[in-house]
Amino acid sequence: MSTGPMPMPMPCAACKLLRRRCTTQCIFLPYFPPSESHNFEAVHRVFGASNLTKLLQKIPFDRREDAVKSMVYEAKARVMDPVYGSVGLIASLQSQVLHLHDELIAATAEATSLRVQLSQTMSLQGHATMDIQQPLHSSCDHDFSIYDIGLQEEI
Amino acid sequence: MSTGPMPMPMPCAACKLLRRRCTTQCIFLPYFPPSESHNFEAVHRVFGASNLTKLLQKIPFDRREDAVKSMVYEAKARVMDPVYGSVGLIASLQSQVLHLHDELIAATAEATSLRVQLSQTMSLQGHATMDIQQPLHSSCDHDFSIYDIGLQEEI
Repeated sequence: MSTGPMPMPMPCAACKLLRRRCTTQCIFLPYFPPSESHNFEAVHRVFGASNLTKLLQKIPFDRREDAVKSMVYEAKARVMDPVYGSVGLIASLQSQVLHLHDELIAATAEATSLRVQLSQTMSLQGHATMDIQQPLHSSCDHDFSIYDIGLQEEI
Repeated sequence: MSTGPMPMPMPCAACKLLRRRCTTQCIFLPYFPPSESHNFEAVHRVFGASNLTKLLQKIPFDRREDAVKSMVYEAKARVMDPVYGSVGLIASLQSQVLHLHDELIAATAEATSLRVQLSQTMSLQGHATMDIQQPLHSSCDHDFSIYDIGLQEEI
Protein backbone atom coordinates (compact mmCIF):
# COMPACT_ATOMS: atom_id res chain seq x y z
CA MET A 1 0.00 0.00 0.00
CA SER A 2 1.42 3.39 -0.99
CA THR A 3 2.36 5.81 1.80
CA GLY A 4 3.07 8.76 -0.52
CA PRO A 5 1.16 12.05 -0.48
CA MET A 6 -2.51 11.78 -1.30
CA PRO A 7 -3.58 13.22 -4.67
CA MET A 8 -6.10 16.03 -4.51
CA PRO A 9 -9.46 15.35 -6.18
CA MET A 10 -9.27 18.89 -7.62
CA PRO A 11 -5.82 20.33 -8.36
CA CYS A 12 -4.85 23.76 -6.99
CA ALA A 13 -4.66 26.66 -9.45
CA ALA A 14 -0.88 26.25 -9.74
CA CYS A 15 -0.90 22.54 -10.54
CA LYS A 16 -3.76 23.07 -12.98
CA LEU A 17 -1.81 25.71 -14.87
CA LEU A 18 1.45 23.76 -14.71
CA ARG A 19 -0.44 20.56 -15.67
CA ARG A 20 1.02 18.49 -12.89
CA ARG A 21 -0.37 16.16 -10.25
CA CYS A 22 -1.54 18.03 -7.14
CA THR A 23 -1.12 16.28 -3.80
CA THR A 24 -1.72 17.09 -0.14
CA GLN A 25 1.96 18.08 0.06
CA CYS A 26 1.81 20.61 -2.80
CA ILE A 27 3.52 23.82 -1.62
CA PHE A 28 1.02 25.98 -3.54
CA LEU A 29 -2.16 24.17 -2.45
CA PRO A 30 -2.96 26.31 0.67
CA TYR A 31 -2.52 29.61 -1.19
CA PHE A 32 -3.86 29.06 -4.69
CA PRO A 33 -7.30 27.42 -4.58
CA PRO A 34 -8.76 26.40 -7.95
CA SER A 35 -11.12 29.37 -7.85
CA GLU A 36 -8.24 31.88 -7.83
CA SER A 37 -6.37 30.91 -10.96
CA HIS A 38 -5.80 34.58 -11.90
CA ASN A 39 -3.58 35.03 -8.83
CA PHE A 40 -1.27 32.19 -9.77
CA GLU A 41 -1.24 33.25 -13.40
CA ALA A 42 0.09 36.67 -12.34
CA VAL A 43 2.86 35.39 -10.06
CA HIS A 44 3.79 32.69 -12.55
CA ARG A 45 4.08 35.28 -15.31
CA VAL A 46 6.17 37.73 -13.26
CA PHE A 47 8.21 35.60 -10.85
CA GLY A 48 7.91 32.10 -12.28
CA ALA A 49 6.76 28.99 -10.40
CA SER A 50 10.33 27.91 -9.68
CA ASN A 51 11.32 31.21 -8.05
CA LEU A 52 8.08 31.27 -6.06
CA THR A 53 8.76 27.73 -4.80
CA LYS A 54 12.32 28.64 -3.75
CA LEU A 55 11.11 31.75 -1.98
CA LEU A 56 8.33 29.95 -0.10
CA GLN A 57 10.69 27.16 0.97
CA LYS A 58 12.86 29.76 2.74
CA ILE A 59 9.94 31.32 4.62
CA PRO A 60 8.37 29.80 7.78
CA PHE A 61 4.92 28.27 7.27
CA ASP A 62 3.16 30.95 9.30
CA ARG A 63 4.52 33.75 7.08
CA ARG A 64 3.89 32.11 3.72
CA GLU A 65 0.33 33.37 3.32
CA ASP A 66 1.51 36.98 3.71
CA ALA A 67 4.39 36.31 1.31
CA VAL A 68 2.01 34.93 -1.33
CA LYS A 69 -0.37 37.87 -0.89
CA SER A 70 2.42 40.40 -1.31
CA MET A 71 3.78 38.57 -4.36
CA VAL A 72 0.33 38.43 -5.96
CA TYR A 73 -0.07 42.16 -5.32
CA GLU A 74 3.39 42.90 -6.76
CA ALA A 75 2.84 40.65 -9.76
CA LYS A 76 -0.51 42.27 -10.59
CA ALA A 77 1.09 45.70 -10.33
CA ARG A 78 3.80 44.60 -12.80
CA VAL A 79 1.20 43.15 -15.19
CA MET A 80 -0.75 46.43 -15.06
CA ASP A 81 2.36 48.57 -15.46
CA PRO A 82 5.22 46.58 -17.05
CA VAL A 83 7.64 49.52 -16.81
CA TYR A 84 7.23 50.60 -13.19
CA GLY A 85 5.22 47.87 -11.44
CA SER A 86 4.77 48.42 -7.71
CA VAL A 87 7.64 50.92 -7.76
CA GLY A 88 5.33 53.31 -9.64
CA LEU A 89 2.96 53.22 -6.69
CA ILE A 90 5.85 53.72 -4.25
CA ALA A 91 6.96 56.81 -6.18
CA SER A 92 3.39 58.14 -6.24
CA LEU A 93 2.97 57.58 -2.49
CA GLN A 94 6.32 59.19 -1.72
CA SER A 95 5.25 62.21 -3.74
CA GLN A 96 1.97 62.38 -1.78
CA VAL A 97 3.81 62.12 1.53
CA LEU A 98 6.10 65.02 0.58
CA HIS A 99 3.12 67.09 -0.61
CA LEU A 100 1.12 66.43 2.57
CA HIS A 101 4.20 67.14 4.65
CA ASP A 102 4.60 70.56 2.98
CA GLU A 103 0.90 71.33 3.47
CA LEU A 104 1.12 70.34 7.13
CA ILE A 105 4.09 72.64 7.68
CA ALA A 106 2.16 75.51 6.06
CA ALA A 107 -1.00 74.82 8.09
CA THR A 108 0.99 74.57 11.31
CA ALA A 109 2.80 77.84 10.54
CA GLU A 110 -0.53 79.51 9.80
CA ALA A 111 -1.98 78.32 13.12
CA THR A 112 1.11 79.57 14.95
CA SER A 113 0.84 82.98 13.30
CA LEU A 114 -2.89 83.22 14.14
CA ARG A 115 -2.16 82.22 17.73
CA VAL A 116 0.37 85.06 18.05
CA GLN A 117 -2.05 87.54 16.46
CA LEU A 118 -4.85 86.43 18.79
CA SER A 119 -2.59 86.62 21.82
CA GLN A 120 -1.52 90.16 20.94
CA THR A 121 -5.09 91.27 20.25
CA MET A 122 -6.34 89.86 23.54
CA SER A 123 -3.46 91.50 25.41
CA LEU A 124 -4.58 94.86 24.04
CA GLN A 125 -8.00 94.17 25.50
CA GLY A 126 -6.43 93.40 28.88
CA HIS A 127 -7.47 89.76 29.06
CA ALA A 128 -5.93 88.15 32.10
CA THR A 129 -6.16 84.66 30.72
CA MET A 130 -6.27 83.57 27.16
CA ASP A 131 -8.14 80.53 25.89
CA ILE A 132 -5.96 79.96 22.91
CA GLN A 133 -5.52 76.50 21.54
CA GLN A 134 -2.11 74.99 22.03
CA PRO A 135 -0.22 73.85 18.95
CA LEU A 136 -0.96 70.34 17.86
CA HIS A 137 1.82 67.85 17.70
CA SER A 138 3.08 67.72 14.17
CA SER A 139 5.07 64.93 12.60
CA CYS A 140 6.97 67.17 10.22
CA ASP A 141 10.13 65.15 10.62
CA HIS A 142 9.63 62.72 7.78
CA ASP A 143 12.33 62.42 5.18
CA PHE A 144 11.71 60.06 2.33
CA SER A 145 13.64 59.07 -0.71
CA ILE A 146 12.86 56.64 -3.49
CA TYR A 147 16.10 54.88 -2.62
CA ASP A 148 15.42 54.56 1.10
CA ILE A 149 13.88 51.12 1.33
CA GLY A 150 12.59 51.00 4.88
CA LEU A 151 10.96 47.62 5.08
CA GLN A 152 10.84 47.20 8.82
CA GLU A 153 7.13 47.94 9.13
CA GLU A 154 4.78 45.13 8.40
CA ILE A 155 1.47 45.43 6.59
CA MET B 1 33.22 35.95 -43.06
CA SER B 2 30.67 35.86 -40.24
CA THR B 3 28.00 38.59 -40.19
CA GLY B 4 26.60 37.61 -36.77
CA PRO B 5 26.60 39.85 -33.71
CA MET B 6 30.04 40.85 -32.46
CA PRO B 7 31.14 39.25 -29.19
CA MET B 8 31.87 41.65 -26.35
CA PRO B 9 35.44 41.67 -25.06
CA MET B 10 34.00 41.80 -21.55
CA PRO B 11 30.62 40.12 -20.93
CA CYS B 12 27.80 42.04 -19.22
CA ALA B 13 26.95 41.11 -15.65
CA ALA B 14 24.05 38.95 -16.85
CA CYS B 15 26.05 36.89 -19.34
CA LYS B 16 28.86 36.52 -16.82
CA LEU B 17 26.48 35.09 -14.21
CA LEU B 18 24.65 32.92 -16.74
CA ARG B 19 28.01 31.82 -18.23
CA ARG B 20 27.00 32.55 -21.77
CA ARG B 21 28.56 34.43 -24.70
CA CYS B 22 27.80 38.16 -24.59
CA THR B 23 27.38 39.95 -27.92
CA THR B 24 26.50 43.43 -29.10
CA GLN B 25 22.90 42.21 -29.45
CA CYS B 26 22.59 40.99 -25.84
CA ILE B 27 19.32 42.34 -24.41
CA PHE B 28 20.90 42.83 -20.97
CA LEU B 29 24.11 44.53 -22.12
CA PRO B 30 22.91 48.19 -21.91
CA TYR B 31 21.48 47.77 -18.41
CA PHE B 32 23.81 45.42 -16.55
CA PRO B 33 27.44 46.52 -16.98
CA PRO B 34 30.08 44.15 -15.55
CA SER B 35 30.60 46.50 -12.59
CA GLU B 36 26.99 46.11 -11.42
CA SER B 37 26.74 42.36 -11.00
CA HIS B 38 24.77 42.74 -7.73
CA ASN B 39 21.87 44.30 -9.65
CA PHE B 40 21.56 41.36 -12.03
CA GLU B 41 22.01 38.86 -9.20
CA ALA B 42 18.99 40.38 -7.43
CA VAL B 43 16.65 40.39 -10.46
CA HIS B 44 17.84 36.93 -11.49
CA ARG B 45 17.11 35.59 -8.01
CA VAL B 46 13.64 37.15 -7.76
CA PHE B 47 12.30 37.27 -11.33
CA GLY B 48 14.61 34.96 -13.24
CA ALA B 49 16.54 35.80 -16.41
CA SER B 50 13.88 34.25 -18.64
CA ASN B 51 11.01 36.34 -17.18
CA LEU B 52 13.16 39.48 -17.33
CA THR B 53 13.93 38.80 -21.01
CA LYS B 54 10.25 38.28 -21.83
CA LEU B 55 9.28 41.46 -20.00
CA LEU B 56 11.95 43.57 -21.70
CA GLN B 57 11.01 42.24 -25.13
CA LYS B 58 7.48 43.61 -24.65
CA ILE B 59 8.67 47.09 -23.65
CA PRO B 60 9.84 49.76 -26.13
CA PHE B 61 13.60 50.42 -26.11
CA ASP B 62 13.24 53.89 -24.62
CA ARG B 63 11.36 52.53 -21.56
CA ARG B 64 13.60 49.55 -20.87
CA GLU B 65 16.07 51.40 -18.68
CA ASP B 66 13.27 52.53 -16.34
CA ALA B 67 11.83 49.01 -16.35
CA VAL B 68 15.19 47.52 -15.36
CA LYS B 69 15.67 50.12 -12.61
CA SER B 70 12.24 49.44 -11.14
CA MET B 71 12.80 45.67 -11.29
CA VAL B 72 16.19 45.99 -9.60
CA TYR B 73 14.57 48.12 -6.88
CA GLU B 74 11.73 45.61 -6.45
CA ALA B 75 14.08 42.62 -6.45
CA LYS B 76 16.33 44.19 -3.79
CA ALA B 77 13.29 44.95 -1.65
CA ARG B 78 12.23 41.28 -1.92
CA VAL B 79 15.74 40.06 -1.05
CA MET B 80 15.78 42.36 2.01
CA ASP B 81 12.26 41.38 3.08
CA PRO B 82 11.25 38.00 1.58
CA VAL B 83 7.76 38.15 3.13
CA TYR B 84 6.61 41.63 2.11
CA GLY B 85 9.12 42.93 -0.46
CA SER B 86 8.21 46.31 -1.95
CA VAL B 87 4.61 45.84 -0.73
CA GLY B 88 5.90 46.38 2.82
CA LEU B 89 7.12 49.81 1.79
CA ILE B 90 3.80 50.54 0.07
CA ALA B 91 1.91 49.67 3.26
CA SER B 92 4.26 51.84 5.32
CA LEU B 93 3.86 54.79 2.93
CA GLN B 94 0.07 54.40 2.86
CA SER B 95 0.06 54.46 6.64
CA GLN B 96 2.17 57.65 6.60
CA VAL B 97 -0.17 59.27 4.08
CA LEU B 98 -3.19 58.53 6.27
CA HIS B 99 -1.39 59.80 9.37
CA LEU B 100 -0.28 63.03 7.65
CA HIS B 101 -3.77 63.46 6.23
CA ASP B 102 -5.28 63.25 9.74
CA GLU B 103 -2.72 65.70 11.09
CA LEU B 104 -3.42 68.11 8.25
CA ILE B 105 -7.16 67.99 8.96
CA ALA B 106 -6.49 68.72 12.65
CA ALA B 107 -4.07 71.59 11.86
CA THR B 108 -6.50 73.09 9.34
CA ALA B 109 -9.37 72.86 11.85
CA GLU B 110 -7.19 74.51 14.49
CA ALA B 111 -6.32 77.36 12.12
CA THR B 112 -10.00 77.82 11.25
CA SER B 113 -10.95 77.96 14.92
CA LEU B 114 -8.21 80.48 15.67
CA ARG B 115 -9.30 82.60 12.70
CA VAL B 116 -12.86 82.72 14.07
CA GLN B 117 -11.60 83.58 17.55
CA LEU B 118 -9.39 86.34 16.16
CA SER B 119 -12.18 87.73 14.02
CA GLN B 120 -14.55 87.88 17.02
CA THR B 121 -11.90 89.49 19.24
CA MET B 122 -11.08 92.12 16.64
CA SER B 123 -14.78 92.83 16.11
CA LEU B 124 -15.09 93.60 19.81
CA GLN B 125 -12.27 96.12 19.43
CA GLY B 126 -14.12 97.74 16.55
CA HIS B 127 -11.56 96.99 13.86
CA ALA B 128 -12.90 98.08 10.52
CA THR B 129 -10.65 95.75 8.60
CA MET B 130 -9.05 92.57 9.71
CA ASP B 131 -5.70 91.34 8.57
CA ILE B 132 -6.45 87.71 9.14
CA GLN B 133 -4.79 85.09 7.04
CA GLN B 134 -7.03 83.28 4.64
CA PRO B 135 -7.22 79.52 4.91
CA LEU B 136 -4.63 77.67 2.94
CA HIS B 137 -5.75 75.26 0.31
CA SER B 138 -5.73 71.81 1.81
CA SER B 139 -5.64 68.57 -0.07
CA CYS B 140 -7.60 66.64 2.52
CA ASP B 141 -9.44 64.69 -0.11
CA HIS B 142 -7.04 61.77 -0.42
CA ASP B 143 -8.42 58.30 0.01
CA PHE B 144 -5.97 55.47 -0.16
CA SER B 145 -6.27 51.76 0.16
CA ILE B 146 -3.69 49.01 -0.02
CA TYR B 147 -5.75 47.48 -2.79
CA ASP B 148 -6.04 50.64 -4.89
CA ILE B 149 -3.17 50.20 -7.28
CA GLY B 150 -2.98 53.56 -9.00
CA LEU B 151 -0.04 53.16 -11.32
CA GLN B 152 -0.73 56.00 -13.69
CA GLU B 153 1.88 58.34 -12.24
CA GLU B 154 5.40 57.85 -13.42
CA ILE B 155 8.49 58.09 -11.28
